[in-house]
Amino acid sequence: MVRGFPPEEFEARWERLRSAMTQARLDAVLVSTEANFQYICGFSSQTWVSPTRPRYLILPRNSDPVAIVPTSNAQGIFATTPVRDVRTWQAPNPSDDGISLVVGALREIALSYGAIGTELGPESRLGFPVGDFLRLVEATRPIEIIDASKLIMRLRMIKSPREIDKIRAVAHVASDCFERLPEMIKPRTTIRDVCRLLQAELIKSGADKAPYVVGEAGLGGYETVMMGPDDHILSSGDLIFIDTGAVYDSYFCDFDRHYGVNYVLGEASRAYDAVYRATEVGLAAAKPGRRVSEVWRAMTGSLTSAGVEATYVGRMGHGIGLNHTEPPSVNSTDNTMLEPGLVFTLEPNAQYELSNHAGQKKLMVHEENVVVTDSGIELLSNRAAPQITILSFSS
Amino acid sequence: MVRGFPPEEFEARWERLRSAMTQARLDAVLVSTEANFQYICGFSSQTWVSPTRPRYLILPRNSDPVAIVPTSNAQGIFATTPVRDVRTWQAPNPSDDGISLVVGALREIALSYGAIGTELGPESRLGFPVGDFLRLVEATRPIEIIDASKLIMRLRMIKSPREIDKIRAVAHVASDCFERLPEMIKPRTTIRDVCRLLQAELIKSGADKAPYVVGEAGLGGYETVMMGPDDHILSSGDLIFIDTGAVYDSYFCDFDRHYGVNYVLGEASRAYDAVYRATEVGLAAAKPGRRVSEVWRAMTGSLTSAGVEATYVGRMGHGIGLNHTEPPSVNSTDNTMLEPGLVFTLEPNAQYELSNHAGQKKLMVHEENVVVTDSGIELLSNRAAPQITILSFSS
Repeated sequence: MVRGFPPEEFEARWERLRSAMTQARLDAVLVSTEANFQYICGFSSQTWVSPTRPRYLILPRNSDPVAIVPTSNAQGIFATTPVRDVRTWQAPNPSDDGISLVVGALREIALSYGAIGTELGPESRLGFPVGDFLRLVEATRPIEIIDASKLIMRLRMIKSPREIDKIRAVAHVASDCFERLPEMIKPRTTIRDVCRLLQAELIKSGADKAPYVVGEAGLGGYETVMMGPDDHILSSGDLIFIDTGAVYDSYFCDFDRHYGVNYVLGEASRAYDAVYRATEVGLAAAKPGRRVSEVWRAMTGSLTSAGVEATYVGRMGHGIGLNHTEPPSVNSTDNTMLEPGLVFTLEPNAQYELSNHAGQKKLMVHEENVVVTDSGIELLSNRAAPQITILSFSS
Repeated sequence: MVRGFPPEEFEARWERLRSAMTQARLDAVLVSTEANFQYICGFSSQTWVSPTRPRYLILPRNSDPVAIVPTSNAQGIFATTPVRDVRTWQAPNPSDDGISLVVGALREIALSYGAIGTELGPESRLGFPVGDFLRLVEATRPIEIIDASKLIMRLRMIKSPREIDKIRAVAHVASDCFERLPEMIKPRTTIRDVCRLLQAELIKSGADKAPYVVGEAGLGGYETVMMGPDDHILSSGDLIFIDTGAVYDSYFCDFDRHYGVNYVLGEASRAYDAVYRATEVGLAAAKPGRRVSEVWRAMTGSLTSAGVEATYVGRMGHGIGLNHTEPPSVNSTDNTMLEPGLVFTLEPNAQYELSNHAGQKKLMVHEENVVVTDSGIELLSNRAAPQITILSFSS
């Protein structure tokens, strides 16, 4: 599959961004995080792993974009992006890591509104030190520096066919790896080693990275979906939960799968059945013109009829794309309209108690990835099996 | 190897941090980034991949630490950290993602100095939206919110024996994988697939993650160390450069290796020889009591005598630990004293031209990982071979 995007993809993004800037009365946007920098110009580099050297990209409403990057990044900007105004400094330079260049570039922008947007809002981060942000705000007065993260995210939420191709590709790789995983697991393996097997298989099978491979295993269920894997050795009756965020060409898939060791306790099977059915209801409810909150309500209704208890996870799905999680949130308050190109996860979750075992409540979190189409949705992950897959180990 | 740290490790860190706070006249530090949060309490979770839900940790100078985390993270804090005051909210909640709890907790702190430190300085980031930071500054007046990133980083720079064990472990895994790589590469492979092989091998061999696996290959050399890998197919005379940042139990190693396909052009061999010798000089110069800038000067002197040209990379090494790159910077201006426990990379680099080929200058970047001991340094990576390793493909 072709990597990157042709120039017309970025031309279309710039046009939409500039039109959104006009509506929001912004003269430019300044971005410094990997996802937004890449969204605007296509720069893809693993150096974002390191926090030492910041990178800045300015897209003015009425003039050409400006990249302000360490000297060592300039070749990459010229070779892989349509940005031609590239300004550099020898980084790291703790006393001025590019910030005076940014201030200079912002001052050159022709102002109609006196406002420049940057990444300040919910779910956003800044890709450079806040001390430098405060200096920038002072040095560019009277220009107002306000939030543009929601504006950019609204555009990013609706993926182009080329973006969807990338997410579909990595979701298929992850689906295949999850389906092959049972053959690969040997008895008395730790859940950590199961995650290791899956991570290596994802890479070998075509994912570029698998930054997120969480696994939990325990008799009859698991109590967190954020902390594992640990060194628990698989044994009969364990329910295995594995969740992966894998990446192809910078785009994430994000879904989980369950396996039982030899057998699954009835309470776990019933909880799985409830979230599986809730997902079916969510898949049927997700159509263009509906709202995200309606999909949440449909799934919640299904879980309530099944008599299972709600959890503290806080939502039942979220957007995916250049970030592992991004807006919208599938919950009661997010009224984002489903439009063709919106890619998100359906993630109904429940909690349950084991009747014969004291202790904490168990979680059951199911997840699939979908894209909204003209008439409904397309599943990007291969649909999970209606029953938990059993690994048969003779012990 | 044991994962995590025993309670006394955190007690020692808190004692050092509190004593640094007193010196800096700070009543508390507030951290929200993965590395600093983990340094202070040991919380290790892959959910930091997602920017949706922020997490906050406050260590007051005179009272117990407070974690402010999404409800879904509370179990992990209790189970894996010594923090007992855990305050939660149902995230995501875009209108108040924990920030009012943070303001409340900061207001409870007994003030001696009226100042609280957070992550604002060079090489730091904030782990929550800047819009919320600005709200926090307003809501906590007259408390001053100032930088504590340098103070925390000065402590983090000097690793404990347990931290060094983790870096040594992952550096050995990466060294072994680099040494086995030649047997694994088949003729007519792309550099992307070579990186894929290495990444999978790192995971299978015991690294938890390999967030950074950059590769470049080309006749006689490479022109960037930040952009690859791409789909270039290996052919005779190619110089292969691979750099990896791999992780064990949250600690990074970071070094590179070179391979030649069938042969290496003389210019590349000479440049390799120059950076190899500069590394030897750097290894000999690195001793407790010397300064980082002296190590830089020793390596620069060696490169100058070898007649090679300086590059735009901006430094010749850096600290490693919970971040892929962290202070100090091995350059002319960083006068950090080498102390036992300082872990850093020696990374001399040069550029050269190919006499028979037009085009851009080639880079040559060599790298090893070391820890300062009582009497000198210990190599954490297995020392690279003095000549570029040749892959022999019959074509």
